[in-house]
Order: sequence, then structure tokens, then C-alpha cells
Amino acid sequence: MKVAFTSDNIAGASDSVFNAMMDASQGDAMPYGNDDMTAEVTSILSELFECDVDVFLVSTGTAANVLSISAMTPPWGSVLCHTESHLLNDESTAPEFYTGGARFVGIGGADAKMDPTLLKKVVTQKVGDVHSCQASAVSISQVTEVGSVYSLAEIRVITDIAKEAGLSVHMDGARFANALLSLGCTPAEMTWKAGVDIVSFGATKNGTMASEAIVVFNRSLSKELGFRRKRGGHLHSKMRLLSSQMKAYLTDDLWRKNAAHANAMMVLLQEGLASIPSVKINTPAQANMLFCTLPEGMADHLLAEGFAFYGGRWEEGVVRLVTSFRTPKEGVEAFVECARQFDASL
Amino acid sequence: MKVAFTSDNIAGASDSVFNAMMDASQGDAMPYGNDDMTAEVTSILSELFECDVDVFLVSTGTAANVLSISAMTPPWGSVLCHTESHLLNDESTAPEFYTGGARFVGIGGADAKMDPTLLKKVVTQKVGDVHSCQASAVSISQVTEVGSVYSLAEIRVITDIAKEAGLSVHMDGARFANALLSLGCTPAEMTWKAGVDIVSFGATKNGTMASEAIVVFNRSLSKELGFRRKRGGHLHSKMRLLSSQMKAYLTDDLWRKNAAHANAMMVLLQEGLASIPSVKINTPAQANMLFCTLPEGMADHLLAEGFAFYGGRWEEGVVRLVTSFRTPKEGVEAFVECARQFDASL
Amino acid sequence: MKVAFTSDNIAGASDSVFNAMMDASQGDAMPYGNDDMTAEVTSILSELFECDVDVFLVSTGTAANVLSISAMTPPWGSVLCHTESHLLNDESTAPEFYTGGARFVGIGGADAKMDPTLLKKVVTQKVGDVHSCQASAVSISQVTEVGSVYSLAEIRVITDIAKEAGLSVHMDGARFANALLSLGCTPAEMTWKAGVDIVSFGATKNGTMASEAIVVFNRSLSKELGFRRKRGGHLHSKMRLLSSQMKAYLTDDLWRKNAAHANAMMVLLQEGLASIPSVKINTPAQANMLFCTLPEGMADHLLAEGFAFYGGRWEEGVVRLVTSFRTPKEGVEAFVECARQFDASL
Amino acid sequence: MKVAFTSDNIAGASDSVFNAMMDASQGDAMPYGNDDMTAEVTSILSELFECDVDVFLVSTGTAANVLSISAMTPPWGSVLCHTESHLLNDESTAPEFYTGGARFVGIGGADAKMDPTLLKKVVTQKVGDVHSCQASAVSISQVTEVGSVYSLAEIRVITDIAKEAGLSVHMDGARFANALLSLGCTPAEMTWKAGVDIVSFGATKNGTMASEAIVVFNRSLSKELGFRRKRGGHLHSKMRLLSSQMKAYLTDDLWRKNAAHANAMMVLLQEGLASIPSVKINTPAQANMLFCTLPEGMADHLLAEGFAFYGGRWEEGVVRLVTSFRTPKEGVEAFVECARQFDASL
Repeated sequence: MKVAFTSDNIAGASDSVFNAMMDASQGDAMPYGNDDMTAEVTSILSELFECDVDVFLVSTGTAANVLSISAMTPPWGSVLCHTESHLLNDESTAPEFYTGGARFVGIGGADAKMDPTLLKKVVTQKVGDVHSCQASAVSISQVTEVGSVYSLAEIRVITDIAKEAGLSVHMDGARFANALLSLGCTPAEMTWKAGVDIVSFGATKNGTMASEAIVVFNRSLSKELGFRRKRGGHLHSKMRLLSSQMKAYLTDDLWRKNAAHANAMMVLLQEGLASIPSVKINTPAQANMLFCTLPEGMADHLLAEGFAFYGGRWEEGVVRLVTSFRTPKEGVEAFVECARQFDASL
Repeated sequence: MKVAFTSDNIAGASDSVFNAMMDASQGDAMPYGNDDMTAEVTSILSELFECDVDVFLVSTGTAANVLSISAMTPPWGSVLCHTESHLLNDESTAPEFYTGGARFVGIGGADAKMDPTLLKKVVTQKVGDVHSCQASAVSISQVTEVGSVYSLAEIRVITDIAKEAGLSVHMDGARFANALLSLGCTPAEMTWKAGVDIVSFGATKNGTMASEAIVVFNRSLSKELGFRRKRGGHLHSKMRLLSSQMKAYLTDDLWRKNAAHANAMMVLLQEGLASIPSVKINTPAQANMLFCTLPEGMADHLLAEGFAFYGGRWEEGVVRLVTSFRTPKEGVEAFVECARQFDASL
Repeated sequence: MKVAFTSDNIAGASDSVFNAMMDASQGDAMPYGNDDMTAEVTSILSELFECDVDVFLVSTGTAANVLSISAMTPPWGSVLCHTESHLLNDESTAPEFYTGGARFVGIGGADAKMDPTLLKKVVTQKVGDVHSCQASAVSISQVTEVGSVYSLAEIRVITDIAKEAGLSVHMDGARFANALLSLGCTPAEMTWKAGVDIVSFGATKNGTMASEAIVVFNRSLSKELGFRRKRGGHLHSKMRLLSSQMKAYLTDDLWRKNAAHANAMMVLLQEGLASIPSVKINTPAQANMLFCTLPEGMADHLLAEGFAFYGGRWEEGVVRLVTSFRTPKEGVEAFVECARQFDASL
Repeated sequence: MKVAFTSDNIAGASDSVFNAMMDASQGDAMPYGNDDMTAEVTSILSELFECDVDVFLVSTGTAANVLSISAMTPPWGSVLCHTESHLLNDESTAPEFYTGGARFVGIGGADAKMDPTLLKKVVTQKVGDVHSCQASAVSISQVTEVGSVYSLAEIRVITDIAKEAGLSVHMDGARFANALLSLGCTPAEMTWKAGVDIVSFGATKNGTMASEAIVVFNRSLSKELGFRRKRGGHLHSKMRLLSSQMKAYLTDDLWRKNAAHANAMMVLLQEGLASIPSVKINTPAQANMLFCTLPEGMADHLLAEGFAFYGGRWEEGVVRLVTSFRTPKEGVEAFVECARQFDASL
């Protein structure tokens, strides 16, 4: 059996999600989020996060990220994120567009996590100097772009530096559930209790078709988000299409179950690959994404055998493997077996 | 039986549309529009419009409008639209945002159609003067905001003025199908054959949950739309959610059937109201939207009886009534009857 | 003797101004406004306006206007100004550019003064509605674009409406001195005591070469102006070029004397023209600008005789005449005499 | 005798420059650059650069840089400049503002010159990928931020890479004259003959008070600059203030003489410091700016003795020394002598 590990955005939706979409397509409902289901989603998320939150549903992760950050920085500010972050590498100039021309500054650090020392240096330099961008917000990715996960302590170090300098903190949670299960903590602990002001609570990669929630803990930032969402063209008239997906996603722990499966498949995949002598694990996967280096010829062999994944974008031999809520166990086993046979033939 | 005439955005989706969404939620597909169904939608629209078109699917009408126009004007340009247009009244500052700060200038005219004389004056004044906005694009709404429909000749007059002055032309077709059936012409005749460069081909108000197509006839404008859609956060990863809806919408003439029903219900509604002495038809409805003036007390009575519609936003007594693909005939009849009884009691 | 009445921006600088510029060109000074003279200008303006003000010097009136307003509105806001204002007609899309895409909405009213009833209507509609621009600031021009001057009571009516709705108020004082002398009040009375938050204190049209002061009374708006000025490219390194002009302008009442001369020349001009039967005064000039309607042929005759002024931009026969601090009395007399002779020949 | 080496922006203007400004302040002139002197400046620069150029005068170097670049990139593009460039470090977010939110990407390289290999890599990656910024323009600084000067061959390598990838090239010539004299070539050779499309021809640091010329060789880029200058608020009404300075600057080789003096003073300064054992030259100065490392205590001693310069912004002990057209030879000698004495006391 062949399977694709290119990304978790290639899978469709969980059954309960598309059934909910179908139900939501019946009958009339008030437009623009004034329907009951949208209100219900806010209640569910408030309960989940153990505090009153404001919620803004949008249909893409890029929109969730850049709208969130647009509420955190003036146009002359700078937003600090990891040099390998999605924001800096995969969202075109959406960050500059939505912030009215703020600057996005890359901060280095191992395993795609910001180095606190570098961050500290940047946030404390040239404060008040009109010639320089004024550090205004920090954005961290949880799961990171290389598949690592910030520990709660690591998040706290970052947010402490930010708060001390008066900066707001955004978390890009495109793979929020995968990170949460990896840490084994509560949503509150991974966010506002750790100093996060707004999270992009991703669902599209983990079981919905197109539904992301901007969840605002620091509600002083909420006021303008309604206006910014509309002017960005992201206010759906038939909002229930988004809220129905999100409600189903949050019902009966679907979101946790889906992420648990994806993470478990990655454990299987990683353990299998780690046992193959010629394969090198680059960053140990802590959630559902893995970067590893394959020996010459192995990637081509696997692709030829019908497996799909991305390579060729990084250093020689490096490939990225992502599991999802739908990745079949047999597919993982077949992939590992195929790699093992290639290794044996070396 | 009670019914809502507030807007055609309160109805859900046609059966074949949500079934298509359900089907599209199965299995894997390439992300970001690189799936087969998205390509198919482009083919269908090319056939429908009888020419090769470029298609950019987005999930809201505002996004379709402002992205289209952003490809037509430099930031120092002005975009001419009717003073009562959706662009100028209901899309916040999305127009300014997406064009990088162009100016949107309202042009008056009866029945919410641009007055060609006023348009001509504006496009020919201060050309090349750096102190003044440079007229760069024209946007017309078909159906208009008051429910009237431009004839093909009327469109041609507008586009001729625009073309002569070197301006591009956008059509806001949020209710494209309703206008088309009203005119009884082909999609090509109402668009590129009449001088339109890009149309926002609306589907959400007429049977889908969230799917709008930017259809580009003047393909020299296409190149940047892909980049602009991404930086606007409007490129869906699971694009098939949008393309499945659009494909179902365009299959078996669903889009025409839906609009035909909405328009027929409006004929019924308008004829009924026109026969009531105390009700005044303000602009004869040519598609599925009607503005009329009710005598004192009638609106309150109808609302108390459980009907829903908008009033209080315009001059004293003016209400707006919109029919949709799902408006029940019995609901229209009940509404007219209720109004008639109130009239009789005056 | 022939003279130009095209605008007050064609005259050079007063003697003391260019002598001050020459002095300021000697020796070293700290850059970017950290020089003594710039601080001195702030002190002088604080004394002049009888309160502590923040001052941001820039070299053009457009920069002064749009920077001021950029501190008053979010990008989804609307700024209300007269339909004939300079902001809406002569500054390209600088307003949209500097505000990050806010909307500038024209409010009508006789003599280029905003009609309070219209203003009231606009500021109170659709408040909080995300689909609509949110009225955020008001900008009035003093002198107006047709040469009229708001009375203190008229300013108060406007600012009261603005304040009640939570809007900030900007005054475009490109001809501040001309208006002030016309009213015979103090600078404080015409600004902050009347509810103005920021004034563009113009000097370039009245004796300097290029020096305008953004004078901030509501100092909570000041913080971001320093950053906005820099990112607009308007922070001069050798700021003393601007501050020397402004200091000289404010020394020994030069600014009042210059405006007094310009206004006096206008009185002479207007009285002369009013006494000519075939000339019609359109809006009585209250400062140094006059719009009047000349009989057929008179404008061409005057132009042929060597006088300069603008016509042909407004209704048939309408011309604009502007006097400046340098307009020679003999020139005015010659102009009137020339018009009178033409009239006599009719 | 004491002297300041903080920057070349602290000196005032050359005598002929301020005399020209004084002359230009007399009489009437057409506004907004429609005066004779502005036309004359264009002629002089066309002759100087040995080709027909378009010229846009502005009053700050930041405005010259960001306006130039705004004509070279779409909002979804990226502009490549050195990580230590003025654009990326000292102009706030003006770059993002003027380009409508393009991204400015730092390219490393020794001596603040772009490494061609790194540049090549960036301009050839992810071309056409909507998720990534599209490399659109290159900006090089001549003199660089550390006082080095690109050779003609080095410029050519950069522009060849840019041209091959379809990118435009901007040169930040804030210290154009200093670089030119250092290379001993013609203005044409250092610009368009080397592949430069637009140069920010700086004059303010070398003898004027506020006058910079955007000189456009690739005139297809000119059309929009007029509109962009106005909407940036950078179109002076009394343009002759800028053109008079520029004309005087270009008359009788003033600009070359001034730069020659500044460069000669740097030679004297550098030779003096190089002969002091405890002083380390970091980057050999090729024009009028030097970075060197002083032994512990020397900087404080020199500052205490009344000399002025910047330190404390870079690595331990590093100071920046800048000479100007007005730097007195005695001042340089006194500085070196003071440093030498401190060294002897170690």
C-alpha cells in the first residue's frame, strides 16, 4: 500500500466534520457569524481554554496568522519570528500586507525554536529610536517548522522576554493539537498560562476542510479584529460553514483523537527509520513531522515505488515526512520496509 | 408559513452542492488548487464563457471584488463605482486595503446604475495631473444594489467610456445568474463581449456555501492575481472545498435553475405588492431584489407576523425584499396576503 | 505693472527667512531635529498657542496633513472632510497611503464649509458595523478652498459633533495666518480652545520656502508621529533648514505682517472687482483667496495683458485670484483697472 | 582644535549652495517643479551622466531610496540589499511602507558588499511560487555602510545576476561623490554603464542642506515616480529650493571638490590611526568613513577631550569616524595626535 507524506493538508475531512457541514447547509441562518452555531463555538473554546476568549473564524491559516499579528503591531513595528517560520517563508508578503508594512525579523535558534538570547538582544536594542523598527510582537510556531515542540518552560522563557519588553505574543498553532498531545498539557497551559496573547488554533491540517480559529486571550486586542477580518475579505456570509466544521472538530474529542493518530504514526515512522543504519534523523520528531537525511538513491527509490514526500528543497538528501489523522498504519510500515530494503541493498 | 426576505445569503446550499462537498472531503488531493477538480472548474467556466479564462476561486464576495480590482489600478489611481455600490458601502475599507490605497469614487445615476455622462466627466478630467487621482478602473454591479439590471447596451456605454480612457472594467456579479436570466443573454454577451475584463462570478448567494470565482477575460491581468490571492490569505490549502461547490453549481444548470426560481419568486412578490394600493414600488425589480415603500405600520405588522426583512436603513417606510433559490412560493403568497390585509384595514 | 494671482505658492521667501536659512547653513549641528533651533521652535509655538505643544516640522503641506491624520484613524476608519477640500482634490492618494487605506469621505456644505447636519448624520450611522467604515476623524480647512473662513462658532459646532462621537479633529491650516487675522482671534482660540487636536500650521504659502509645522495639542496623538514622520521619509537630517525658516517666520510677527498684507491686498482687489458691474463675486473672500465670475472675454483679456491666474477648471467664467505676502499694491490696482476698462468696453 | 566625526550630516552647506538658495528665494516662480531651474538641473544631470535621464528631486535620502525602489517591485516582491544597509537598518519601515508591503531581504557579504553567490542563490529560488516573495529588485550602497566602495567589476557582477533574473537595480548613492572619486571613474561608468537603473544621487551629506536627486536611467520606471512622489508628500511647491541647491552643487565641480576634501581628510585620518600600534583598522576606508577598534579607554579619552564620534553600537571598542567637506585638517591632526598620546601612555 502506498501513501503520501507530503503534508497534512492533503487529507480531506473527518466523517463527523463533513456530516456537520452537510447539516449546516440546510435551512436559513443569520449571516456573518450572527448564527447560533458560531456563538456555540466561542462557548466551546472558552470552556476548552478555561477562560473567556474571543473567537474569529477564518478559512485559511495564513489569514489566521496575519490577522492575529496585525492587531499586535503598529506599521512601524517589527515582529520577531524564527528564520525558518511559516510566516517568513511560506506566506508570501501577507505579513507585511496585513500589518500595513511592519517588518518581520527572523531570529535564529536550534530546531526552529527561537534562541532566547538572540531574541533578548533584538527586543532591547534601539528602543524609541525612530530610525529603527520598534520590536512590537513575537510569533512562535507550535509545532515548529522542523517538527520540534517548545516545552512549556521554553515558551515561558520567550514570553517573559516579550512581556518584559512590552511585546505581545502570538502562537501559530497550525498543528496545535499535535503539539498539545506531545506535551501532555492542557490548552490553557500551552497558551495564556504560558504568556500567549492570541493563538491561531489550526484545524484544517487535522480534520476539517477549511476552518481556523483566531482565539484571543488578551481581549484588549479583540476590538479591531472584527474590522480587520472584514477588510481582509475574510468574514464569511454563511459563517456556519466554518463554525459547523469547528464544532464537529471539537466534539467528542475528535481533534485530540486525530492528532493522537497522526503523532502515533510518526512514532512508528520515526522508530522504523531510526533503526535503518543509513538513515539519519535530523531533528527528532516530537509531533507529526520529521526531517531526516536519506542515503543517496533512497529518496528516488521510495518515490519510484509510489510514496510521496518533499525533498530537494533543503540540503542534499534531506526529506520531510508528515503524518496526518488519516495516515494508514500499513502505509507507514510499507514505507519503512521499502527504505529498509533499499538500505540492505547498499 | 413564515419566511425571511432579508437577503439571499441566509439560505444554505443546494443538495447537489453539499453532496459534492462531502465527496470532496474524502481521500487525498494536491493542495493549493493543484488538484484535478480545480482544473476542471476552469475548463467548465471557459466553456461557459466561450473563451479561455483564468479562474481564481475564493471564499467570499468581498475577496473576489477587491482582488479583481487590485489587478486593475495602481495605488495612485481611482476606481469608479456607483455611490450605492456594495464596494463603497458594505465592504469596510477592503477596497483601499487591497489596492494599496487607491481611491474609490462614487458616481451617481438613477436605479443604482452609473450615469454615463458623470462617468465620462470624471475619467477625462485631470489626466496626468500628479495632484489628482488617476482614473484607472470602473466597477459595475450586475444586479445593482437596488435590484435593477444593466441592459447589454447600458453596459456597453459604460465600458466604451472606460476603454476609450484606458481603464479596465470589473463586474461585481454577486448576483450574476439572476441578472443573466433577467436579460436572457449568454454569459459571454454580458461580460467580455460587452467589454468586461474581470467578473466576480458569485455563487454563494445562489446555492453554494462559500465559493466565488474571479473569472479573468483579459488575461494580461491574471499574472499578479495568484500572488495577490496568496498574500491576501485567500489561497485555500484544501481548494477542492471551493472547487467542488463551484463544479456542482455549474453542473446540470443548477445555477440557472436556482436563479430562475429566485427571480420567479420576485415576480410573484412584486406583482402581489404592486396590486396593493398603499404599497409603492420604488425601483421595479428586474431580478431577485426589490425596494418598496410601505405605508405606516405595515412593516411593523409584517415583522410582528413573523416575516423578516430589512427596513429602517433608508428613507421612511422603505424596505428591501430579497428572494433566493430556496424562497418558498407559499411564503411569498403569505407575505403578500398579510400585506393586503393590512392595507385593507387602513 | 503685471502680477500673478495664481497662488500664494509662487512667491519666494521673506528676507528674514532666507537670511535665517543662510545663517543656519553655517557650522555643525546635531542632525534629525536634535539641534537647539528645533527645540526653540517648539518653545515659540508653545508660547504662541498658550499651551505645551508637540511640534513635527516637515517640508510640505501634504505631508503635514496626511501625517497628522494618520495618527487619528485606524485603517478601517473614515475621515470626514469637505468635498472641495485640498485633501480630497489635490493630494493624490496621499491620504489613503498614509492612513494605511482609510477612506476619505466628502461632506458637502456651502462656501466649502462642512454642513453640520450632514456631518452629524455620517458620524452617527453604522457605528460598530464591521461592514462600514467607522468615522474616526474630521478635517477642516481654515481658510477653506474657496476663500471663506470658519467663524469660531462654526468650528465649535463641527468639533462638538466630532467629540461627541469620539472623533479627533484636524485643521488644515495651510493659510492659518490669513484666517487668524481675518477672525481677529488668538491662535489658541482658533485651535485647541475650539476643539482642534492637531493643526497643520502652514508657513510655506506665507513667507517661507518649505517649512510646515504639525502642531499637536492632544499630545496623546504625538507618540506615533515621530515614527510615522521617519517612515514617510520626512525626517530631515539637517532639520535646521526647516527650523530656521519657521523661527524667522515666527519672529517679530513676520507671519502676521505677511498675512496682513496678503489679506489687505485681497480687500483692495475684491472691492475693486465688486465695483465693476459685469463681475460677480461668488464667495466673498474673507482672507486672501477669491472666486469670481468674469464676463465673457474678460479673463482672456487680462491674461493677454500679462496677468496670471487660474480659470477654466470650474464653471464657465469662474476664476480664482490669490494674493500673497508679496503681492504689490500697484499690481492689484492695475488688475482692477484693466478689468474695469474691459467692462466699460462691453 | 576640536572636531566632530559623527557623520557627514552635521555640516551645513557650502557657500555657493546657500547663496543659491538665497537667490532662489527672490521673485515668483512656477510651483511644483515647473520652474526653469528644475528643468536646468535635469539638463545638467543628463550631461553629467552622458545620457537622457529623468530627475525627481526630494529633500531626504530616505525618500530618494524608497521612492526609487517602489517603482521597481510589486507588493509581493522582495528587494535584496545588504544586511548592514541603511535601508534595512536606519530607515524605519519606510521601505515596506513605500512598496506597499514588499519584503526587504538582507544578503550578507564581507565589507558590507553583497556576496554574489548568496545573491545568486536567493534570486533563483522559488521563482513563480506564490507562497514565496518574488525577488524583484536589488539595492546596493555606494559607499557602503562600513566605508568600503564597490569596484566597477564588483558592481557589474551584482547587476549581471540581477539582470539575468529580470530584477531592477537601485544604487543608494548617499555618498555618491565620495565613491566616485575613490574609483576615479565617470558617473556613467559607475551607474548605467554598470547596469544600474536608478541612483539616489545624494548631495545633502556633501554640501547641500536638503536636496537629493532620484536619477532614472531606465526611463520606463519613470512614469509612476511622479505620482508616487506626490502621494508620498514629497513634491515641493517651491521646488526651486531644492533645484537651486542641486544646481549650485553641480556647478564648478563643487560636488567633486567637496568629496575630494572629505576623502583626503579620511586618508590623513586613516594613515594617522594606522600608525598607532594599539589602534586596529577594521575595514580600510575607501572614501570618507572608517570603522576602527580603539584600545580600552581611548574612546573615552578622545570624547573627554572634546572630539565627537559614534561608538558603543558595535562590538567592544569599535568606533565610526566620518569626514566631510568641512572637516578641518587641523582637527584631523589633533585627533590623531590625541590618540597617539593616549597610546603612548598605555
